[in-house]
Amino acid sequence: MTKLETVQEQQRIKVQPEIAKLGHFGLVSTDLEKSLWFFKEVIGLEETEEKDGVHYLRAWGDFEHHTLSIRAGEESRLDHVAWRTKRPEDVDAFAEVLENDGIEVEWVEEGTEAGQGKAFRFKTPSEHTFEIYFEMEKTLASPETRSVLKNQTHRSWSRGVSPRRIDHVNLLTNYSVKDLSQFMADKFGFKMRECVEMPDGELAGSWMSVTPLVHDIALSFDPNAETPNRVHHISYWLDNAQDLLRAADILKENGIFFKGPGKHGISQAMYIYAIDPGSGVRIEIFTNGYLIFEPDWEPIVWTVDEMDIGFTYWGDQMDNKPENNPTIKA
Amino acid sequence: MTKLETVQEQQRIKVQPEIAKLGHFGLVSTDLEKSLWFFKEVIGLEETEEKDGVHYLRAWGDFEHHTLSIRAGEESRLDHVAWRTKRPEDVDAFAEVLENDGIEVEWVEEGTEAGQGKAFRFKTPSEHTFEIYFEMEKTLASPETRSVLKNQTHRSWSRGVSPRRIDHVNLLTNYSVKDLSQFMADKFGFKMRECVEMPDGELAGSWMSVTPLVHDIALSFDPNAETPNRVHHISYWLDNAQDLLRAADILKENGIFFKGPGKHGISQAMYIYAIDPGSGVRIEIFTNGYLIFEPDWEPIVWTVDEMDIGFTYWGDQMDNKPENNPTIKA
Amino acid sequence: MTKLETVQEQQRIKVQPEIAKLGHFGLVSTDLEKSLWFFKEVIGLEETEEKDGVHYLRAWGDFEHHTLSIRAGEESRLDHVAWRTKRPEDVDAFAEVLENDGIEVEWVEEGTEAGQGKAFRFKTPSEHTFEIYFEMEKTLASPETRSVLKNQTHRSWSRGVSPRRIDHVNLLTNYSVKDLSQFMADKFGFKMRECVEMPDGELAGSWMSVTPLVHDIALSFDPNAETPNRVHHISYWLDNAQDLLRAADILKENGIFFKGPGKHGISQAMYIYAIDPGSGVRIEIFTNGYLIFEPDWEPIVWTVDEMDIGFTYWGDQMDNKPENNPTIKA
Amino acid sequence: MTKLETVQEQQRIKVQPEIAKLGHFGLVSTDLEKSLWFFKEVIGLEETEEKDGVHYLRAWGDFEHHTLSIRAGEESRLDHVAWRTKRPEDVDAFAEVLENDGIEVEWVEEGTEAGQGKAFRFKTPSEHTFEIYFEMEKTLASPETRSVLKNQTHRSWSRGVSPRRIDHVNLLTNYSVKDLSQFMADKFGFKMRECVEMPDGELAGSWMSVTPLVHDIALSFDPNAETPNRVHHISYWLDNAQDLLRAADILKENGIFFKGPGKHGISQAMYIYAIDPGSGVRIEIFTNGYLIFEPDWEPIVWTVDEMDIGFTYWGDQMDNKPENNPTIKA
Repeated sequence: MTKLETVQEQQRIKVQPEIAKLGHFGLVSTDLEKSLWFFKEVIGLEETEEKDGVHYLRAWGDFEHHTLSIRAGEESRLDHVAWRTKRPEDVDAFAEVLENDGIEVEWVEEGTEAGQGKAFRFKTPSEHTFEIYFEMEKTLASPETRSVLKNQTHRSWSRGVSPRRIDHVNLLTNYSVKDLSQFMADKFGFKMRECVEMPDGELAGSWMSVTPLVHDIALSFDPNAETPNRVHHISYWLDNAQDLLRAADILKENGIFFKGPGKHGISQAMYIYAIDPGSGVRIEIFTNGYLIFEPDWEPIVWTVDEMDIGFTYWGDQMDNKPENNPTIKA
Repeated sequence: MTKLETVQEQQRIKVQPEIAKLGHFGLVSTDLEKSLWFFKEVIGLEETEEKDGVHYLRAWGDFEHHTLSIRAGEESRLDHVAWRTKRPEDVDAFAEVLENDGIEVEWVEEGTEAGQGKAFRFKTPSEHTFEIYFEMEKTLASPETRSVLKNQTHRSWSRGVSPRRIDHVNLLTNYSVKDLSQFMADKFGFKMRECVEMPDGELAGSWMSVTPLVHDIALSFDPNAETPNRVHHISYWLDNAQDLLRAADILKENGIFFKGPGKHGISQAMYIYAIDPGSGVRIEIFTNGYLIFEPDWEPIVWTVDEMDIGFTYWGDQMDNKPENNPTIKA
Repeated sequence: MTKLETVQEQQRIKVQPEIAKLGHFGLVSTDLEKSLWFFKEVIGLEETEEKDGVHYLRAWGDFEHHTLSIRAGEESRLDHVAWRTKRPEDVDAFAEVLENDGIEVEWVEEGTEAGQGKAFRFKTPSEHTFEIYFEMEKTLASPETRSVLKNQTHRSWSRGVSPRRIDHVNLLTNYSVKDLSQFMADKFGFKMRECVEMPDGELAGSWMSVTPLVHDIALSFDPNAETPNRVHHISYWLDNAQDLLRAADILKENGIFFKGPGKHGISQAMYIYAIDPGSGVRIEIFTNGYLIFEPDWEPIVWTVDEMDIGFTYWGDQMDNKPENNPTIKA
Repeated sequence: MTKLETVQEQQRIKVQPEIAKLGHFGLVSTDLEKSLWFFKEVIGLEETEEKDGVHYLRAWGDFEHHTLSIRAGEESRLDHVAWRTKRPEDVDAFAEVLENDGIEVEWVEEGTEAGQGKAFRFKTPSEHTFEIYFEMEKTLASPETRSVLKNQTHRSWSRGVSPRRIDHVNLLTNYSVKDLSQFMADKFGFKMRECVEMPDGELAGSWMSVTPLVHDIALSFDPNAETPNRVHHISYWLDNAQDLLRAADILKENGIFFKGPGKHGISQAMYIYAIDPGSGVRIEIFTNGYLIFEPDWEPIVWTVDEMDIGFTYWGDQMDNKPENNPTIKA
C-alpha cells in the first residue's frame, strides 16, 4: 500500500461507502435448458461452475467468479442486480445507511452464491432487488479455456457472439425516474450522465454511473409497465462495432429474435437487442460509445422530441409491438 | 448536489487531492508547419484556436479546450504533460504536497495557456515536466465542425485518421522505473495495473492509472536513454480495430514512418506507432484493450522473457534501429 | 498475345459479342450543385474533369475515366447506364444484333462523353436507356490525389464515405421482369443468379450478371411504378462491413436521408440506401456478399414469403412511405 | 438455355477449352490428426465426409463437395491442385491439348475422389501436379450445419477463423516463372495481372487469373528452392479485414506460428500466413484487395526495388529464417 493510499484509507473509515462497479445478474428462468443454450452456446459465455442447480457464467474477459447466474424457477425474473463496493467495509456501511433510512436489508451469507462472500439485498423504491457485496473469488479459468495472456481470463472467440465483459443494466419502471435517479445518487453516489426530460419535468430516461462508462445503470420510464420493477435489458460488451455484425449473423442462424444493429445518440454506442428464448430477458450486445473522465461533467439533457437521434441515431430500432417487448420482473 | 456528495465534499476538505485524468500535451516542434500538417491533416485533429503562435488542438470527441498544443521552438520537446485534478482545490493541495517534499513548483497564471485556469508545473524525479490544473474551458465547436449529437464535440471522420480522444502518455527514462512508479503512487494516487520485472527486481516497464484505463501513463526503462526525461510516445484513441487498418493506409499514402499494426499482450490493446515528421515525437494510435473496474486489482507482473507475447502479442513490432526510434525530451 | 488467345480471337470473329462489365451512370440533376456536393463531399468520389458542364466522377479504385457523370437538367433522371464490351468490335456487333431485332440504335460519337470512344444507346423493352461502348480512357489521377500504389488510381479515404468502385445498378419497372431478364440473357448474355418468384410465376426481382458478382444488374418489379423505366438505385462498393457503419455516421452528420445498415439474404451483402438530395437518385453503399465462380450455377429461387430473410436478412429495412422512396426515370 | 447461349454453345464445340476456377487442394500430411485439428478446429473448415481415409473439407461458403482433401502419408505434400473447367467437354479437350504437346496425362476415374467425376492429372513444366475436372457434387450441408440462407452452404462462424471460401494457390519454384506464366497463359488462358520483374528480365513473381480475382494462382521464384515443385501457400478468403485480426487472436491462442497481419501492395489484399503444424503447408488467410473487370487489363509491372511497398505495403512481414519458411512439394 502506498503512503497516499494509507492516508486515504484512514480517512475513508469515516467516509461514505462507495460502489465500484456493476457485479452480476441473478437470473431465474422458466426454461433453464434453453436459457443455458442461449447464454452459453449463442452468446458464448463460459460456465465457471454449477452448484445446487445454479449455473454461474461469465464472459471471457470478466475477472470475477461470475457475472450472470441462472437457475430454474416458476416465473422468469431478474432475482437481483449485484453491485460491488470499493472496500470490504462498505458492505456494512451501505447496510447501515439504508437501514437508517428505513429500508429493509436481507443478509446473504457467504457461499450462498458460489464464489461470493457476505452480502445483502434490499429493494429500491421501485421494488427492484439489488445486492451489495465486496468479496468475490477471481476464479482462474480451467486449463482448456484459459487464455495464454495472463491479463485475460478465458480465450476469446470460443463460441457464439463472445462478448468481452458485463456492461450495464437498464431497469424499466412506472415509478418516477427522477426520484429513482435521486435515490441512486444520494445512497450510492451514481452520477447522472445523460437524461431525457419530459415536458412536465419528469424524466423519461436516466443514464447514471460510478465509473467513466456513460452508464452502469439506466432507468427507463414506462407509465404502462405492469409493475414498477421491470427489466428493460441486461448488457454485455464487445470490443468492436463489426463484432456486432458478426453477432447478428449468429443470432439469425440460431433463430433468436433481435432488433438492431443500430447506434444510439445517447451514449454514442452501438447495439443489438436480443431476447433470451428461455427466460424472456432482453440482452443488449453493446460496443463503442464514449467514456467520461471529466469530474465536473454536466448531464446531457435531451428532450423527448430529440429522440429521433437520441434513442436511435441510425439503424434498426425497437418497435412498439407488445409481443416483441417482453419484460420480466427484477 | 446530492446528499451523499455533500457529505463526501465536507470530508474531502481534509482528504488528499486526486488526479481525475490525463489532460493534454504541450508540444514544441522545430518544424511547426510540418507538425501542424501531421496532426491536423494526417491524424485529423481539430484546431480550437491559435493564440500567440500556439496552436490548440483536440480530437473530435475531446471535451476540453485542447488536448494538444503545438508551438515552434529551437528544440523539439514535450514541454509538459498536463493532468486534471478531481476538484478545483486539488491544484493548491497538490502544490502543497510537493513543496512539503522539497519539489519546486512553478505557477502558470490563468490564460497563459488558452482556455486554462491557474495551474502549476514541476519536475518529476526523472525530470519530466508535469502540469497540474483543474480549470479548463469546455469549448463548443464551431458550427461548421460541430456534431449533430449534443454529447459529441466535433463531427467525426472529417479528415485523416480521426481518433476519438486523447488516451495516454508513455515516458522513457534511465531513472529507476520502480522509484518513479512509487512517486506516481505516493504523490498522485496512480495504481500500478501491469508491469515488467527484470531479474534484478527493477522494472523494465510500468503501466499505471487513476481511471479504469489500464494506463493513463506508462513508464519505460531504457538504460541508454540520452537523458532521464524522454518521451516514448503520446497516444490517441480510436473506437475500432479496423479504424487502425484504415489509419495505416492513410499514414502510408502520406509518407509517414510507422510500426504496426499489432496487438500488445500487456493492455490487450492494438497499436500503430507513427512519427510526427515535424517534431519527431512518436504517437501511438490505440484501440481495444480492457478496462479495470475491480477496486482490489493486483498488478499483472510479466517477466522479461514473456515479452514475446507481452509487448507484441502479434503483428508488426518496433525494431531497435536508432534511426527509427527518435525520442524527444519532456 | 498468347497462342490460346490468338486462336480464341480468330474464332471469336464469328462469336456473339459479350459484355465485360457495368461501365458508368449518366445522371441528370435538377440541382447540380447539391448533387456534386453529395457525390464529391459526402460520398467522396473524385472528379476527373468537368467538360461542357458535365462533371465526370469516379471512385478511388475505379480505373476508367469516369463511372458517374452529372449534369444539370430540368428533370432529374438517369440519362443512361453504360456497359463496356469485351472487345472493340463487340460494339458494332451488338448494334447489329439489336437492329436485326428491330431495336433502334442511336450512335454517340467519340468524345461526346469525355474520355469515351464511339458508343451507341438504345432503349430496353422497359424503355431504360443503355449505352454500349468499349473505348474509354484509363485516366491517371492528378499527382495530388494519386495513390503511391501503382495498381490503385487515387488515394483512398480522402473525403466522406470513400467507396472503392462502382458496383451495380437496380432498375425498377412495371414491365415484366421475367421478360426483361430474358432480354438481358438473350441479347447480352447475362446469367440469372438469384430471383424472387411470385405465385403467378412472374418475377418480383431478378439478379443477373456477366461477372462473378451476384449482380451487375438487378431488375425490380413494381406494378405501381409511374413509368416502366425507373431507377431503384445505383451502387458503389466498400471493402469492409465496418466502412458501412462509418458511412452511416457521415451521412447522418450531413443530414442525408438513408435506410440501413442491414444485410440482404439475397446476395448476402450489406447495404445502406441513401438519397442524393440533388437529383433524388438512390445510391446503395454496398459490401460483403459472395462471388459466383461456378460455370453451372443454378439460379437461387426465392418465394415472396421468404422475403423476411431474402430482402432484409437483418437490420434496418426500407419502408413503404412514398416520401422516402422517390424514383427517377432512366 | 437462352438463344445467345445456344449459339455460343454451338460455336464453342470448336473453341479452346477454358478454366472456370480454382477447385481444390489435395493435401497429404505426415500428421493427419494434427492437420485435421488445424483445418477443422482452428481454421474452422467443415468436413463433408471421410472416405477411404481421406477427409473432404470445405469452407462455409464453398459450394462444391470439397475444396481441401487431407489424407495421411509418409511425406507431406500437395498431391494436386485442381482446376474446374467451364464446360464438361473441356476436360477431354484440355487432355488433348496437353497430349498434343507431349505432356503425359493420368486419368482419375469418377469417384476416386469423393464427389468428383472423371478428371485427369498432369505435371506442369515445373513438375507441380495439376488436376483438371468438371463434374463435382454440390453437396448439401447436413441439417445441423446448414445455413438458413438458401444461397449459403453452411452457417458461418461455427468454429475458429471461419473463412468464407477457397481463394488461390501460390506455387514456389526454381523453374523460370516467365516460362511457367507463359505455359499457364498458352495452355489454360490465364491472364497476367501483376508481376515483379528482375533486372535480367526474368520474373520474381507472377499473379495470374481466369477470374476477376487478381490471382487464382501466383508463381514465386526461388533460385534456392529444393525442387522446382514447391508450394508457397494455399489460401482461403475472409469477408472483412477485421476478421483477420480476430483470426490472429485465435491462431495465437492455439499456438500456431504465423506472420501478419499485413497488407500487400500487389493485389492490395490483407494477409496472415499461418503454418499447419501437421503437414507444414502454409495457408494465407486473405481478404480485401481489388477485382479486375477490365477486358484489356495491362499487367502491373513492379521492379524488385519496389518490393518495400509491393510485397508488404504495411504490417508484419515474412522473414527469411529457414525454420519459419517450411515448404512442401506439390
